[in-house]
Amino acid sequence: MMKYDLGEGDFKNWIVAEADFSRNLLGKAEAVMSLGNGYMGLRSATEEPYVGEVRNLFVAGTFNQSDRIEVSELPNAADVTRLDIRVDGERLDAAPSRTANYVRALNLKEAELTRSFIWTTSAGKEVAFTFKRFVSLDNLHVIAMSLEIEALDADVQISIESGINAQVANSGSQHFYEGEKRIYDKKYIEMIQKTVESQIDFMFHTVHHASLDGVELEEPFMRIDRRVVMLTFKSAVAKGQKLSLEKLTTVHTSRDKDLAGMELQDMRQQALSSLRACAAKGYDALLLEHARAWERKVWEVYPLHIDSENDFDLLAARFALYHLTVMTPAHDERMGIAAKGLSGEGYHGHSFWDTEMFILPFFTYSNPQIARSLLTYRYLGLEGARKKAKSNGYEGAMYPWEAAWPSDGEVAPEWGRVDVVTGKQTKIWTGFIEQHITADVAFAVWQYYMATDDQAFMEEFGYEIIFDTAKFWASRLEWDDSRQQYSINDVIGPDEYKEHVDNNAFTNYFAHFNLELAVTYYQQLRERDTAVYQKLNAKLQLEQAAIAWNEAIDKLYLPQPRDTDLLVPQDDTYLTKRIIDLTKYKNQTHVNTIFEDYSLEQLSDIQVSKQADLMILFYLLEDKFSEEVKIANYHYYEPKTLHDSSLSLSTHAILANDLNDRSLAYQLYQQACEIDLGPDMKSSDLGMHTASIGGIWQIIVMGFAGVRMIHGKLRMNPKLPAHWNKLEFSISWKGQRLEVAIGKDKLVITALDQLPVTLEVYGTEYSFDHVLTVNLASGDN
Amino acid sequence: MMKYDLGEGDFKNWIVAEADFSRNLLGKAEAVMSLGNGYMGLRSATEEPYVGEVRNLFVAGTFNQSDRIEVSELPNAADVTRLDIRVDGERLDAAPSRTANYVRALNLKEAELTRSFIWTTSAGKEVAFTFKRFVSLDNLHVIAMSLEIEALDADVQISIESGINAQVANSGSQHFYEGEKRIYDKKYIEMIQKTVESQIDFMFHTVHHASLDGVELEEPFMRIDRRVVMLTFKSAVAKGQKLSLEKLTTVHTSRDKDLAGMELQDMRQQALSSLRACAAKGYDALLLEHARAWERKVWEVYPLHIDSENDFDLLAARFALYHLTVMTPAHDERMGIAAKGLSGEGYHGHSFWDTEMFILPFFTYSNPQIARSLLTYRYLGLEGARKKAKSNGYEGAMYPWEAAWPSDGEVAPEWGRVDVVTGKQTKIWTGFIEQHITADVAFAVWQYYMATDDQAFMEEFGYEIIFDTAKFWASRLEWDDSRQQYSINDVIGPDEYKEHVDNNAFTNYFAHFNLELAVTYYQQLRERDTAVYQKLNAKLQLEQAAIAWNEAIDKLYLPQPRDTDLLVPQDDTYLTKRIIDLTKYKNQTHVNTIFEDYSLEQLSDIQVSKQADLMILFYLLEDKFSEEVKIANYHYYEPKTLHDSSLSLSTHAILANDLNDRSLAYQLYQQACEIDLGPDMKSSDLGMHTASIGGIWQIIVMGFAGVRMIHGKLRMNPKLPAHWNKLEFSISWKGQRLEVAIGKDKLVITALDQLPVTLEVYGTEYSFDHVLTVNLASGDN
Repeated sequence: MMKYDLGEGDFKNWIVAEADFSRNLLGKAEAVMSLGNGYMGLRSATEEPYVGEVRNLFVAGTFNQSDRIEVSELPNAADVTRLDIRVDGERLDAAPSRTANYVRALNLKEAELTRSFIWTTSAGKEVAFTFKRFVSLDNLHVIAMSLEIEALDADVQISIESGINAQVANSGSQHFYEGEKRIYDKKYIEMIQKTVESQIDFMFHTVHHASLDGVELEEPFMRIDRRVVMLTFKSAVAKGQKLSLEKLTTVHTSRDKDLAGMELQDMRQQALSSLRACAAKGYDALLLEHARAWERKVWEVYPLHIDSENDFDLLAARFALYHLTVMTPAHDERMGIAAKGLSGEGYHGHSFWDTEMFILPFFTYSNPQIARSLLTYRYLGLEGARKKAKSNGYEGAMYPWEAAWPSDGEVAPEWGRVDVVTGKQTKIWTGFIEQHITADVAFAVWQYYMATDDQAFMEEFGYEIIFDTAKFWASRLEWDDSRQQYSINDVIGPDEYKEHVDNNAFTNYFAHFNLELAVTYYQQLRERDTAVYQKLNAKLQLEQAAIAWNEAIDKLYLPQPRDTDLLVPQDDTYLTKRIIDLTKYKNQTHVNTIFEDYSLEQLSDIQVSKQADLMILFYLLEDKFSEEVKIANYHYYEPKTLHDSSLSLSTHAILANDLNDRSLAYQLYQQACEIDLGPDMKSSDLGMHTASIGGIWQIIVMGFAGVRMIHGKLRMNPKLPAHWNKLEFSISWKGQRLEVAIGKDKLVITALDQLPVTLEVYGTEYSFDHVLTVNLASGDN
Repeated sequence: MMKYDLGEGDFKNWIVAEADFSRNLLGKAEAVMSLGNGYMGLRSATEEPYVGEVRNLFVAGTFNQSDRIEVSELPNAADVTRLDIRVDGERLDAAPSRTANYVRALNLKEAELTRSFIWTTSAGKEVAFTFKRFVSLDNLHVIAMSLEIEALDADVQISIESGINAQVANSGSQHFYEGEKRIYDKKYIEMIQKTVESQIDFMFHTVHHASLDGVELEEPFMRIDRRVVMLTFKSAVAKGQKLSLEKLTTVHTSRDKDLAGMELQDMRQQALSSLRACAAKGYDALLLEHARAWERKVWEVYPLHIDSENDFDLLAARFALYHLTVMTPAHDERMGIAAKGLSGEGYHGHSFWDTEMFILPFFTYSNPQIARSLLTYRYLGLEGARKKAKSNGYEGAMYPWEAAWPSDGEVAPEWGRVDVVTGKQTKIWTGFIEQHITADVAFAVWQYYMATDDQAFMEEFGYEIIFDTAKFWASRLEWDDSRQQYSINDVIGPDEYKEHVDNNAFTNYFAHFNLELAVTYYQQLRERDTAVYQKLNAKLQLEQAAIAWNEAIDKLYLPQPRDTDLLVPQDDTYLTKRIIDLTKYKNQTHVNTIFEDYSLEQLSDIQVSKQADLMILFYLLEDKFSEEVKIANYHYYEPKTLHDSSLSLSTHAILANDLNDRSLAYQLYQQACEIDLGPDMKSSDLGMHTASIGGIWQIIVMGFAGVRMIHGKLRMNPKLPAHWNKLEFSISWKGQRLEVAIGKDKLVITALDQLPVTLEVYGTEYSFDHVLTVNLASGDN
C-alpha cells in the first residue's frame, strides 16, 4: 500500500511512499512513482527485476508502426534502469521475509525517487541498499541513477551488471532496428537504434562511475550481445565498506528539435559530448540543477495550497501537479499528451479528448504557453483530421479519436477486449464514430482564447481549427424527415457503453456550439476584413461554408428536457432500454467487471453508462440548462453510471458541488484522487490516468473554488469542502496571473500585474486592479 | 546441481533430475531437460515464471528474418508453458526457503518431465504441487501438460492464469504479425500468427480441463489482449482437496507437409479438430501413446548398454540418444539439425558442419533413413550453396557456414562479441571464409554411401553434391608461384581462433579429398554411362570439370610433417607465432575466458587453438598419417588447445584412445558428457551442444568400440575403458543391423538379417553371416 505522510519539515505532504514491497503487485508504484519531464517518461520499475514488472521508457512524439497491421504508437525504448545485482552470487530479490526498513519514496518537490532497505542474503549476511534516480527537468535528455551498497556485518562479493538493454518491446511488438553498439574508452556505452517505419534514430549513451569507499573500481567486464551492451562490475566489499555506482544516461532522437537536420554521425557526437559533460558533473550536481528547475518551472508557477483536515487532499493535489508536469511534452508543439502520459503502454501514447476536456483547462488557466503548444499540436493535426474527414466522406477536419503524430490521422486500433458471448475480440468503433472529439477541440480553442485573449494564436491557428471543424459538422448532419431537423446518427457519445446511437445529446450540443463559434468568428472576421480573413476565406471557402453553418445551427436537433420528468434523453433510445439491477457493478472494487457478464453488444440494450455523458455537457455548457433540469438528470443518470472510465468522477464531483451536494462532492474528490493513489493496486498497471489527474485540479479550481468562464467572462463561486480551511492557488486570466485565496469566510484575489480584472462572484460583478476581497456568506461557502 | 541416479528399478539410469531449485541459474535445467520431437523443441522453463528464465518454443524449419538487417532464424513461437499460479493471491515462487521435497526429473525413457514440491505460503499454509509435461513423439503437434495442487493443511484460494502468450521474441526481435485470436465454446483457445518475412502461418490451439476432486470447475475468466489469450481458473480448495488442470496444445504451421497447399481457414479447422481429438483422450492416454512411440522409434532402434563402474557413463549415453532424437527433424528432409537443437536461441537454429562431422555418423550407422533425410537437406541446399558460390565469385556449390532454409544460402551473422580493445563488435568472418564445410558435406555423403550402399540416394542426390562441391574447390584454388602448387588462402579452419590463414591443413586435405571423390565417381559413372551420368554431365559439364579436378588433385599443396619434429603445420604461419602461458585458460571453469584479456585479432598472433583442428583430420582421414606423426602432433597441439568449442573434446577423446592414452580418453569422455550434464551451470544457457551430444556417441562407438569405415570397409578395434565391463550397441552396415557386444575379453557381433558381413578386427579380416565371436587379447582391450 502507498503511504502519503512520510514527508516531514520541508517535505511534509510532498512524499508518496511505500513502506513495504509486494512482488505480487508491481504496477501501482511503477506508474504512480514514474518519472519524466515531458520529453521522456520513465516508469519506475525497480532496479532489480521481478516477474510481472513493466519496464518502460517512452520518448514523446516518437511514434512508429511496429508492423503494417498495428497502429502507430510510442515505442518502448531501451532500458537503462535494470541492474542485475548479486551478493555472493545470489540475485538480489527483496522478498519481504528477507528485507527490513524498506522504503521507496517519490519526493514530488524535487522529483527524485529513492529506495532503501536492508537485505539479508540466504547465508544470513546483511547488506544495505540505497537507490536514487531522477529524470532531469533541467536537461531533458538525462536519466541519472545512483546506488550505494554497504556490507553491514560481513564481507561480501558484489557483482552488478548494468548497461543498455534494448531487448524490450511493446507487449511483444518490436519497433526498432538494431544499430551500432559500442563502448568508447571502456567506459561510454553507445547504442543506436532506428524505428522500423518512422525511421527515427534513437541514441542512448551511458556512463558509469563505480567506486569502493571512494576508490574507483577496476575495469568492468564488457559484453555486447543482441540488442544489449552490458558492463559487469565486481568487487569484494568488506564489512563496513560501501560500494557506490553512479549511472548517467542521455537519450536523444532525430525527432529532437535541437538536432533537426543533422546527420546521424553528428547527432551521436553531440549526444556523446553531452554525456561527457554530465559525467563531469556527477549525480549530486545534476540533481541540484534538476531540483532548481522543478522549483522554477513548476512550484513557483503553480503555487497551490490546501489547508485541510486531511493531509491527503494537499498531497493528492501536488501529486496531480507533479504528473501534469511529467506527462506533458511542453517542449515541442508537434506533440500531445498521451492518455496514460509517458507512464505505461496503455492507449499506445495516443492523445484523446482527455487532453482538451480534462487536462488543457489546467494549462489554459495556469500556464497558457503550454496550453498554446498543446493547441498548436491540434492545429498541426488538421492535416490528419482532414485526411480522416476525406476518407470518411466528409468535408473539413474530422479529428482522430486517437491521435499520434499530427499527420497520422486516425490511429485507433480496430480490435479490443474479448466478447464473452462469441469468444472473438470486440470491434472498436471509437475511431469511426466517436466524433464529438472534433467539437471538443474547437471548444478548447475557444476556452483558451477567452481565458488568454491570445489573438495571435487565433489568427495563426485557432480560427482555422474552428472553421474547419464546423465544416466537418455541416457535412456530417443527416436530415430527419419525421423531425424535420438535422440528426447526427450512428455515433458514440462520451458514454462508450452505447455504440451506434442517434442524436447523443452531448455530441449534438457540442456540434451546435462548434457551428455557432464558427459563425460568430466568421462574422467578426468578415466585418474587419483582415488579411487573416482573406487567407482563410481563400483556403476554406468560408462564405459558402457559412451558409451551411447557419442552416445547420437553425435546424440541428438538440434534445430537450421531457415535460414529464425533465429528463434529457442521452440519445434517441437510451430511456427506452431495459433497466437492470446494477448494485453488483456499482460496488465493484475494480472497473469493467460488467464485461464478465455482458458483452458490449448486450450493454447496448441496458440503461447503463460507463461514464459521465450528460453531466459533462451540464458542466461545460452550464447556461444551456436550468438547475432543476440538472438535478433531475443527475439523480436519474448517476445511479446508472458505473464510473468505469477515469474521466467520470471529476465531472460528477464538480456537478455535485454545483448542485450543492457538497459532502458527496468532497467524497468524489477523494475517490478521484484514489483512481491512481488509492487502494486498488492494479488500477494503474497500464499507466497513469491523466484525465483524472487533470480532473483533480479541475475539482479543486472549477469545483471547490467555483472558477468558470461563462461567455468569455470570469466567475468564481467558491464552495470549499467542510474539511478545508483554506485554499490558495493562482490562475492566469487575460495574460495576468491572479492569486486566489479562499478561506472559510473570505475570498481574496490579487492581480499580480495590477491590470484591471472583472469577475462575478455569486451574482455580483466586481472590477479591481490589485486586490479584491469578498466576504463569503456562510451559506455560500 | 543435476543429479543422475534418481531412477530405480525399470528407470535406473534413465532419470536426469535436480533435487533443489536455484532461481539464480535457470538455463541449465531449461536446456538439459528440454523436450521435443524434431518437429518442435520446447525449452523446459518452469510453469511459474522467474527472472532470468528463457522460455522457448521452436518449430523446425520455420525460418524467418525479423527485419531486413537481421539473419534468418528460427522464431521463438508463442508460449503455452507459463502458468501464473497464485495461492491466496500470492504468486507461487519456489524459493528454497519456502519449498520442501523439491524434485524435477526428466525421464529419458518416456520423455516426460515431472516436478513436484511442497510450497509454504507466506501465511504458513502448505500446498503440494505436481507438474508434468511432454512433447509427443506419437503426434508431433502435441504439447501436453498436467498440474495437480493439493491443499495439505489449510483451505486456500487458488487462481491459475493460463493460455497462449505470443508476447515472446528472439532476444527482442519479433518474428510474427498478430493474427486472429479467439476462444471457441469458452474452451478452445486459438491464436493465429504469420511470420513477417517468410509468411509462414502458425496455428496454436489450446484446451484446458480444470477440476476439483474430479468435479469440473466453472467457466474461467477470459482475456484477450495484445498477442495474448488467457483464461483464469479460480477455486477455493479446502484442506485435503486436489485441484487438477490438464492443458493440451497443438502447434501447426503452413510449412507442415501434411498441410501443404491448404488455405489458412482449412488448416485452422484441421488443427482445431486435431485438438478436439486430443482433448477426448486426455493427458494419460496421450502419454501412453507417446511413451510407446519412444520405445518403438528410439529405444528399440538404438539398443545401447554400458556396464560401467560409473552409472553416469550409461546415463550420459542415454541422455545423448534422447537429445539426438528430440533435436532432429527426421520428419522433413527440408530441415537440418540446429547447432543448439531446438533448445535455445543460440546460433539462431542454423545448421553448421556440426551435423555432418559430429551428429550424422550416429544416424548413418544407427538409423540411415534419418541420415538420408539430413543429407537430402544438403542436396536441397545446393540452391543456396550455388547462390553463395556465385556471389563470392566461385563456381559450383559453396555451402553456407550457417544454413537455414535450403534456398537461403549463407545466413551467418556479421557481428559478434565485443572487441576488448576497440569496444566495437568483432566482425564474424566464418560466413565468408570458413569454407571447409563444403568438403565436410561431400565427406558425409561418401561416409553415408559407404556405410549403406544406398545407390539410389547417390544417383538422385549424392553424386551431384560431390561433383558440384568439387567444382567449387577447383574454382577456389590459388596458384602459389613460390611453391609451384595450389594454395587455399585466407580461410578459417576448424580452429576459429585463427582467422585469415593460408593453407589450413584440414581445409586443404578435405578439399583434396572432395576432389578425389569427384574424380573417382566421375570415372565410375562415365564408364557405366548411365542416364544419371548423362543428366549430371549435361547439368554440370562434368567432362570439362574433371580436367580441372585432376589438375587440382595433382597440384594442391598438402602440408606434410616436418622432418625435424614431425609437426604438421596447422597453417602456413601457426608454428611461427608467439607462445604464451595458457595455464590460466586451460584451467578455466567456463569457456572463452581468454576474450577477457585478448581480442580475436590479438589471438591471431599466438599459438593458441579454440578446438581440435589437425586432430579431427587425423581422426577422419586416419590412413593419411602415421601413428608417429599423430602422436607428435597430439602432444604439441593439445596443450595449445583451450577446448573453447564443444566440438573439441570428443575428437580428442577418440584420438587419445586411438593413441593408447586410454585413461585420458575415458576422462575426456566424462568431460565431454559434462559439457551439458556437468557442474558448469551456465554452459547450456543458449541451448544444448548438439555436436558434443553426437560426440558422446562417437566416443563410445568410434572411440571405445573402435568402429571405423576405412576405404569403404568396416573395422572394429575395441578398447573399452578400464571401468567398463561390457558395451553393447548396434550399428547399421550396408543395410543390415549388426548387434555388437564387447566384453573384457570378447567381441560378439550378430548380423540380424543373416546376410554376409566382412570386417577387420585388429588387423584380421573376418567374414560371417550370423554371429561372429572374436576373443580379444588383454593387450587389445
